[in-house]
Amino acid sequence: MKDKKVILTGDRPTGKLHLGHYVGSLENRVKLQDDYKQFVMIADAQALTDNADNPRKVRENILEVALDYLAVGIDPEISTIFIQSLVPELAELNMYYLNLVTVNRLRRNPTIKNELKQKAFGESIPAGFLTYPVSQAADITAFKANLVPVGEDQLPLLEQTVEIVRRFNRIYEAVLVEPQALVSKAARLVGTDGKNKMSKSLGNAISLADSHKVIKEKVMGMFTDPNHIKVEDPGQVEGNPVFEYLDLFDSDKEEVEKLKTYYRKGGLGDVKVKKRLNQVLQDFLKPIRERREEYAKDPEEVMNILKKGTEKARQKAVQTVDEVRKAMQIDYY
Amino acid sequence: MKDKKVILTGDRPTGKLHLGHYVGSLENRVKLQDDYKQFVMIADAQALTDNADNPRKVRENILEVALDYLAVGIDPEISTIFIQSLVPELAELNMYYLNLVTVNRLRRNPTIKNELKQKAFGESIPAGFLTYPVSQAADITAFKANLVPVGEDQLPLLEQTVEIVRRFNRIYEAVLVEPQALVSKAARLVGTDGKNKMSKSLGNAISLADSHKVIKEKVMGMFTDPNHIKVEDPGQVEGNPVFEYLDLFDSDKEEVEKLKTYYRKGGLGDVKVKKRLNQVLQDFLKPIRERREEYAKDPEEVMNILKKGTEKARQKAVQTVDEVRKAMQIDYY
Repeated sequence: MKDKKVILTGDRPTGKLHLGHYVGSLENRVKLQDDYKQFVMIADAQALTDNADNPRKVRENILEVALDYLAVGIDPEISTIFIQSLVPELAELNMYYLNLVTVNRLRRNPTIKNELKQKAFGESIPAGFLTYPVSQAADITAFKANLVPVGEDQLPLLEQTVEIVRRFNRIYEAVLVEPQALVSKAARLVGTDGKNKMSKSLGNAISLADSHKVIKEKVMGMFTDPNHIKVEDPGQVEGNPVFEYLDLFDSDKEEVEKLKTYYRKGGLGDVKVKKRLNQVLQDFLKPIRERREEYAKDPEEVMNILKKGTEKARQKAVQTVDEVRKAMQIDYY
Repeated sequence: MKDKKVILTGDRPTGKLHLGHYVGSLENRVKLQDDYKQFVMIADAQALTDNADNPRKVRENILEVALDYLAVGIDPEISTIFIQSLVPELAELNMYYLNLVTVNRLRRNPTIKNELKQKAFGESIPAGFLTYPVSQAADITAFKANLVPVGEDQLPLLEQTVEIVRRFNRIYEAVLVEPQALVSKAARLVGTDGKNKMSKSLGNAISLADSHKVIKEKVMGMFTDPNHIKVEDPGQVEGNPVFEYLDLFDSDKEEVEKLKTYYRKGGLGDVKVKKRLNQVLQDFLKPIRERREEYAKDPEEVMNILKKGTEKARQKAVQTVDEVRKAMQIDYY
């Protein structure tokens, strides 16, 4: 059997996952897991870099995120699902890599700069936040990941890892693997407000765990074309989140095209389109929700899955740290 | 038996230790080890923060520093001598503490500011260097040190630790111990050049491992009073390193006072005083050097001592990390 390429991916456990995560990454992970050796990290340590005073939120969402993974079909027998902070070798690598990056380089990282604008840190940027791209380099290299699925906006983070890998391999010995970005073709899913990307904190998200009732409420309350006031008015399909969702989730492409034409011409009411979208999303989310509820009945078993995955992940990370220490000549005995 | 207070102390393994280390810390450690539970850390990870491209130097000096410790009488049966990087729990704590400190706070640390002036980093400050006070907080708190021997110039480092401890205990749970500075009364030993503090890199140091011949050469070449040109000239005792050393190492205080009076008056040549100092230092360093050579014959045994100490240190650090994770509510299973 030819060696499979390694993928590292994951999420910060700060909330339940939603349709945006599904479209942006989860769907892809389910597709990729057979052809790649996939490590799926629940990044609790990274979540703490801007949630240091609310560890309970991070703790509680570990189980939620794990449930979401299992519900969408990430198979723990094939993919290695693990908890970041329980692989202390990642902290060790982080420590060594911090010496290979300058403070100014971290400050100039476009992703970090952008994220800082969105956060309310002001002048009080936690050192752990500024340095989290280094910690990411530790995560990626610990598993010798060849591929890291990222959105366009996260490319600078991967560049930082590549820089660290090159510097390490040049100064010490070439034991680290240079990862490549697997840029997601999937567009970022817009929120139900039609304005921002879907995000739990913006209140415009439909969670994978949402009930039938909540989904319906959210869909019926969605933003559409604000100029489509009367049913007879011609409506705009572009930038209309209801149609964006239909494009993504409605398998009857022909029918969607018909609806678009009708909507553009005028005469098709928002309520009708929303009702269709509601049906489509209910059909899509029901089996996911049911599997989720099934797993949720036995949280201990889910934690056991994470424990096993973490042990497996740790074995690989221990191996890498051994090689790293040898390359650095600090393998004393 | 009443619980002994805990001390954390140590050195970066970047060179053999010298008389400055002896006066500034080693002597004290030998005195303190009976009354305190003393952890003596060989800070290789910290040494790497500004020696990332020269790990061999760090590696080689671990044994040298250990030999110096054993030679001066730090007893591994009483004190716990260990290697920092082999206690990965320290990296873990570092990771969590990085979230409790802001980048600006680190930049304002007076010790760091001063050290940056001395280093040739320019705009390229390694992130690991800027954040090493956080890593120090990890070292100190891992062993729940009550006391940390420091020079005046290092007080800001300890303040940083105290801040982290307070923040941690306030946000999470009061499991960390607030350390106190044990400010060394010993003056910093001036180098043989009489200008700077003794330092290997300045070439003005007398190492504990120096041979009889080298010691003699260094002493006879010492800086004295530059205005004491002819033997008859009155000489200055203050700021004269030869007399500073005599004050510290010559046990015959009466004789030293006599010499000072004579030197001040004029008529006492530098060579004569240096010869006395040479004899004093030879007597002082000979048994140290001999013990050092004895241990150096069996480097494996020395590494074994470090291995045992590191295991013991690790036990304590593991315990602290467990408490820390529990306090942070990230003790998942």
